Amino acid sequence: MTEQAQFAGFAKSRVETFSDGVFVVIVTLLVFDLKLPPIGSATNDAVWQGIVGVAPKLFGWANSFLIVCVIWMNHHRLIDQFRSIDTGLFWLNNVLLMCCSLIPFPTAVLGDYPGTPVAVSFYGVCLALPALCFTALRLYAFRHPALLVSGLSLSAFRKTIGLSFVYGPVLYWFGAALSWVRLELALLVYFFIPVYFIFPVRQRL
Amino acid sequence: MTEQAQFAGFAKSRVETFSDGVFVVIVTLLVFDLKLPPIGSATNDAVWQGIVGVAPKLFGWANSFLIVCVIWMNHHRLIDQFRSIDTGLFWLNNVLLMCCSLIPFPTAVLGDYPGTPVAVSFYGVCLALPALCFTALRLYAFRHPALLVSGLSLSAFRKTIGLSFVYGPVLYWFGAALSWVRLELALLVYFFIPVYFIFPVRQRL
Amino acid sequence: MTEQAQFAGFAKSRVETFSDGVFVVIVTLLVFDLKLPPIGSATNDAVWQGIVGVAPKLFGWANSFLIVCVIWMNHHRLIDQFRSIDTGLFWLNNVLLMCCSLIPFPTAVLGDYPGTPVAVSFYGVCLALPALCFTALRLYAFRHPALLVSGLSLSAFRKTIGLSFVYGPVLYWFGAALSWVRLELALLVYFFIPVYFIFPVRQRL
Amino acid sequence: MTEQAQFAGFAKSRVETFSDGVFVVIVTLLVFDLKLPPIGSATNDAVWQGIVGVAPKLFGWANSFLIVCVIWMNHHRLIDQFRSIDTGLFWLNNVLLMCCSLIPFPTAVLGDYPGTPVAVSFYGVCLALPALCFTALRLYAFRHPALLVSGLSLSAFRKTIGLSFVYGPVLYWFGAALSWVRLELALLVYFFIPVYFIFPVRQRL
Repeated sequence: MTEQAQFAGFAKSRVETFSDGVFVVIVTLLVFDLKLPPIGSATNDAVWQGIVGVAPKLFGWANSFLIVCVIWMNHHRLIDQFRSIDTGLFWLNNVLLMCCSLIPFPTAVLGDYPGTPVAVSFYGVCLALPALCFTALRLYAFRHPALLVSGLSLSAFRKTIGLSFVYGPVLYWFGAALSWVRLELALLVYFFIPVYFIFPVRQRL
Repeated sequence: MTEQAQFAGFAKSRVETFSDGVFVVIVTLLVFDLKLPPIGSATNDAVWQGIVGVAPKLFGWANSFLIVCVIWMNHHRLIDQFRSIDTGLFWLNNVLLMCCSLIPFPTAVLGDYPGTPVAVSFYGVCLALPALCFTALRLYAFRHPALLVSGLSLSAFRKTIGLSFVYGPVLYWFGAALSWVRLELALLVYFFIPVYFIFPVRQRL
Repeated sequence: MTEQAQFAGFAKSRVETFSDGVFVVIVTLLVFDLKLPPIGSATNDAVWQGIVGVAPKLFGWANSFLIVCVIWMNHHRLIDQFRSIDTGLFWLNNVLLMCCSLIPFPTAVLGDYPGTPVAVSFYGVCLALPALCFTALRLYAFRHPALLVSGLSLSAFRKTIGLSFVYGPVLYWFGAALSWVRLELALLVYFFIPVYFIFPVRQRL
Repeated sequence: MTEQAQFAGFAKSRVETFSDGVFVVIVTLLVFDLKLPPIGSATNDAVWQGIVGVAPKLFGWANSFLIVCVIWMNHHRLIDQFRSIDTGLFWLNNVLLMCCSLIPFPTAVLGDYPGTPVAVSFYGVCLALPALCFTALRLYAFRHPALLVSGLSLSAFRKTIGLSFVYGPVLYWFGAALSWVRLELALLVYFFIPVYFIFPVRQRL
């Protein structure tokens, strides 16, 4: 067994487990941005105001949670199409995980300053990063078809690359740009992306 | 193999591992709300007062810890009854995990303001959310019996839905309402729910 | 298959995975108590003073890290001796995990106030809790020998219960008491406990 | 089965899973050091300045993320060469994990004070620790060849020990020393180390 094969054998199951672990921790840690601001007195009204003040953060929290779930699902489906993982895929995957692990940061910025276009567009720009990594991973695999499982239609795979580029980075960039026109429109676009992936369409990968 | 089947094959074991991971991280992170307040001088008395001041938080911490353990146990038993997981179950499960991952937030609010009905009832309202998701998951499965393992009594399953609704969301809402009458009664109800599930009864699912 | 058997089947591997996950997260999160205090100016001297100021915390961090590793090792050896896990063991194990997940709290208190007997003895009292749970788990299994793997010497098992009680809770309580005489002696005892378990002795379980 | 064998059986797969879990949590938690400083008003300019102010931290975050990925990869390759794990390897591995779990602390110090040689060299000194543990693990295995898989070239293994010592601790110490000459040179060296391991070379272990 050559070392390359040994490395590939390593990657497939371990890369999945490692990636799943990263998604699990990201998703669970998002809640730690939900914190009551320091309130003066422990009265019913003050606590209630504090909880109401956290409400805008709940949008970002729920949205990011669902987006990481979508990423997890798409990641699994993508990895399923690989027969083996070479060094290139391995490190592209690590960069994908790195971009995913960044998500709590723009989520916190959005939650703290939901009324500023900078915060809203920063959220979109950051969420485009993992989507961009997905496109890179798919492009890399498309150019190294030996890494893909046999019987896979390369033309369908190429079509998926285009679709995932449009419904991923392009839409997030569009949302980020929209935030300078009207904040609500940007949030609507961000919210649409996970919803699009949640509704099942058979031909989607 | 159709893609639907492929998706279902994905879900069963991976959904379990992902869910278990989320429960593990939630449960372990609860301790990070236990922090000594900043104390003036590092004397024995001041440190002791700090530790004593954290004591009320210990109730919320222990209660939430045990509740997540109960959710973990019930989640496993529920998933065991599924033969396969379709897109609907998959996303209902993700929403369940999202509601579970919220638990550290109301636990912290309760720990900070245990003397206000708002904090105590907020805790109950939030803990009713995962319980409600369980009912939704069971209802969904009941309406798609093809998803259930063969040999399962549908009438027993339906009975469990009702019981889990009463001993879950209804009891938490009841506790939340009680908190406006007397805080101690609400805490007693919250404490009773995990205890009820910890004591083993054969016919319970 | 009776439900009891189904439950037992659940427990053995899943309880191990869940427990391991909790140990992993505890152990990794200990570092988050290591933080530079806010320092006035970003000069070499100020940063160096900040790092030196964190040094006492490093003792608690390293000690707690190694103790959780010991607990993880002992937990695995103990679970290996069980043939199946009933509801009693299941919940005793959850209480053990709960006590383990508390460890970052007394570690932080010790790190913040290493010069007060209250903080030093609080550390010992809290670390006695998981040790006490181990004794409880072993006692429970001893009284339900059907839960143990066949071929296990019950008299050796009983001897282990006694030893684990002495080298666990009793030693921690002793250290906690010593902290009121001399802090260094208590820290020495705390440090001795993981070291004792790290050096391999064949007849130990 | 002797207890020693039982212990070894335990270690191989469980030690891998435990170690992977620790790497996953470290890597994901690094993002929690990326926080906007408290800013006066929620204006576009203020939020933008806040994000720009976090930029230097991004270098440390990305660098540490990739370094932990490299450690994870090397750890897997190393463990693959062991046939069984004795108590010595087990505890050396735990010390390695302990040193890895420290990484978020020097990363935060570097991110907070990137302009001071103390912070930059502290980062290098801390990152040399896991590298040093790798050398220790390899040396230990080299002196207990019965722990290694059969068919392994001991002379190649010895060569790897030397290489891993040079490209690990020696380079980090060199970087740490360079930080007193010129900070940028030190950061360049730190950045070079993961890049060196990312580019695949066949004869490397």
